[in-house]
Amino acid sequence: MRHTISILVENKFGVLARVTGLFSGRGFNIDSLNVAPTHVAALSRITAVLMGDEAALNLAIKQLRKLVNVVEVTDFKDGQAVQRELVLVKVKASAKSRSEVMQICEIFRTKIVNVDHKDVIVELVGDCAKVSAFLNLLEPFGIIEIARTGTLALKRA
Amino acid sequence: MRHTISILVENKFGVLARVTGLFSGRGFNIDSLNVAPTHVAALSRITAVLMGDEAALNLAIKQLRKLVNVVEVTDFKDGQAVQRELVLVKVKASAKSRSEVMQICEIFRTKIVNVDHKDVIVELVGDCAKVSAFLNLLEPFGIIEIARTGTLALKRA
Repeated sequence: MRHTISILVENKFGVLARVTGLFSGRGFNIDSLNVAPTHVAALSRITAVLMGDEAALNLAIKQLRKLVNVVEVTDFKDGQAVQRELVLVKVKASAKSRSEVMQICEIFRTKIVNVDHKDVIVELVGDCAKVSAFLNLLEPFGIIEIARTGTLALKRA
Repeated sequence: MRHTISILVENKFGVLARVTGLFSGRGFNIDSLNVAPTHVAALSRITAVLMGDEAALNLAIKQLRKLVNVVEVTDFKDGQAVQRELVLVKVKASAKSRSEVMQICEIFRTKIVNVDHKDVIVELVGDCAKVSAFLNLLEPFGIIEIARTGTLALKRA
């Protein structure tokens, strides 16, 4: 099963290493993870997408809550949270193919953030399904490089 | 000094824990970090923003390159890379203040992705300076929660 987990932590030395260590120690595969400061100077938020068995995950969350410097752990159920991802894609785009690439970008409401003779860098924000659909359409042109933030989530209510 | 580093790694068990462990073991403060799969099934990309001394960082990068499952490490100099961040902000917005919040959102070309009676969730993409300016303007309304992906970077040339 795929789980999106939000972990509020104190900005203390080594806390990220402890959190990722706990997951790897319990055999969890981290699909994606991101961490950055919040508006409260002393706190950072980690959003992680994990693959694994439900019971084992619940146990891991219990252990997470006991870790030093972990303030809050939320396991988002479907639809509870707004989920978005940011992707930067460098795709081949010669003078010939550029207009076709730009057309796809326009349909997906993406933004071209860099243009070179042979390629463009596109910025896309969306949920999993949108990102997959977009990358599938770009594949035939030749994807050179890609960077993804992984899922970012915030509770609706 | 602030450094943005891109690390291409094999999707092997525990590699993220090893990378974060190396940084914390050497006393580096990770300001932000994100990791997600790339278009090549076997590879993930980590983008990390680190604060620390130049010489110590160069040493850490050398050690990173020697880690099992690390394929490539790039230390981006200023302007070499497109750098963007995705932010979700839940901000107080009553019937009274909502139009003012929406005005600020429009100026920053952000997107309102959720509306409730007392708050809205806003999605913003930008560089460090844009994100800071936006959050400063929202502060007086009352920021309830925030989630940031941290800097994502892709080489221009």
